[in-house]
Amino acid sequence: MEYNDIEITIVKIGGNVIDCPEDLKYFLQEFAVIPGDKVLVHGGGKLATRISAKLDVPTKMIDGRRVTDSQTIEIVTMVYAGLINKSLTAQLRSLGCDAIGLSGIDAGIIEAVKRSPCPVDFGFVGDIPVDGINAERLLTFINAGLVPVFCSITADRHGILLNCNADTVAQSIATALSAAGVSVRLIYCFEKQGLLANVNDDSSVIPLINSVNCEKLKASGVIAAGMIPKIDNAFKALNEGVKEVVIKSHNDLNNTNKGTKITLR
Amino acid sequence: MEYNDIEITIVKIGGNVIDCPEDLKYFLQEFAVIPGDKVLVHGGGKLATRISAKLDVPTKMIDGRRVTDSQTIEIVTMVYAGLINKSLTAQLRSLGCDAIGLSGIDAGIIEAVKRSPCPVDFGFVGDIPVDGINAERLLTFINAGLVPVFCSITADRHGILLNCNADTVAQSIATALSAAGVSVRLIYCFEKQGLLANVNDDSSVIPLINSVNCEKLKASGVIAAGMIPKIDNAFKALNEGVKEVVIKSHNDLNNTNKGTKITLR
Repeated sequence: MEYNDIEITIVKIGGNVIDCPEDLKYFLQEFAVIPGDKVLVHGGGKLATRISAKLDVPTKMIDGRRVTDSQTIEIVTMVYAGLINKSLTAQLRSLGCDAIGLSGIDAGIIEAVKRSPCPVDFGFVGDIPVDGINAERLLTFINAGLVPVFCSITADRHGILLNCNADTVAQSIATALSAAGVSVRLIYCFEKQGLLANVNDDSSVIPLINSVNCEKLKASGVIAAGMIPKIDNAFKALNEGVKEVVIKSHNDLNNTNKGTKITLR
Repeated sequence: MEYNDIEITIVKIGGNVIDCPEDLKYFLQEFAVIPGDKVLVHGGGKLATRISAKLDVPTKMIDGRRVTDSQTIEIVTMVYAGLINKSLTAQLRSLGCDAIGLSGIDAGIIEAVKRSPCPVDFGFVGDIPVDGINAERLLTFINAGLVPVFCSITADRHGILLNCNADTVAQSIATALSAAGVSVRLIYCFEKQGLLANVNDDSSVIPLINSVNCEKLKASGVIAAGMIPKIDNAFKALNEGVKEVVIKSHNDLNNTNKGTKITLR
């Protein structure tokens, strides 16, 4: 089957918008009216951390990254695949969007592999191999008019639950759909207006990043910390055929003049 | 579209098997090898109660039935639609069963209505109206070779999350598929061997219940307490076209000589 005439918008939202009911409501209204085929990928928010604390499961971090032990994978599966995924799906459906909430496990759309415990054992964390996305099956859902809403919970082929990075889930889906011939637009939404030249100045959005100025921006420290994997994911997606990647505020989803557009050149 | 040549087995499991990893593993192996099209509907188990206690959310009961307040609906959505649904789905997939974990919300397959607060306010509890199941859409998934795994979490048309009785979810799906022309076999699995003439004697299984002996068994108290809604659900399903209803142990899924068969006459 050929998909060269299909365009799909993939939007990823992070925890900040999930933690703010007003922003979330506005975002979902804007997402629901995006024309054409679309996919939503969502992160977690602070609820999993709050529930871990209540359940006396300590949150372990190594280098700023959560360690997912056997209790933590159960908690994030409850929170991400349960409460958040179903709340978002129900809200989207009430807005007339024909949403279906999915984890990577469902219908085998994402098959992850457990990350090697060397050099650092992050526990039940999954990586998505090149052939880890069943694009054909995802496209059957999308072609039936459904709007898939993905959390970052996956499993390996042995049925072991694994948490993946939600940015990576979005990028892997985008890449796999591009490889199937779909024209994909990937939008990473977060709490800032885009990539800022000055982190304290919301008006300093850099409108365009390409492979040339990216290296300079990394060298000068403008692209730092949590932005590095985001930008690297964006270039990975572009290098593998994704048509357009944009990083913008979840409050500006349909405002085409806002955000930072990332292109190869 | 006509479905007169399709046979579907719908199996419902309760909390007891979910709370026992060995029984659950055996059950899932047996479910995975049921030939032909099938659907699994699962209940909750004790985890929601344990987590409610840990989170200091008191479990309120009226007449032996849980009251689902705004905190409790969040907890059961986490546990049923999150951890249990995704664990079952991942385990079934690792057994070669092409499972897709769903709540009633997803793809709008079940649209429930909030139960009236009069005479008793059970909170965020849903009932499934006659037109509440989108059988056509469910059949598209089944015809694509998928095995839907349903929890009892649904939503109303306004996006309000609601918990339904899992027996009722199974019966509603069975009835709606029958109305679409499918030949449906409905199996309620629980911890007993079937309906027992003597509740203390596991060998006293009543092999057949029909509308005639049912009334006598109710009058004599053999069908009592929690069995009454189960049996009533079974007759409702049969009256609305379901071909066969069986109540049996989750350890005897594929043993056709076991359990209590319920027929109209």
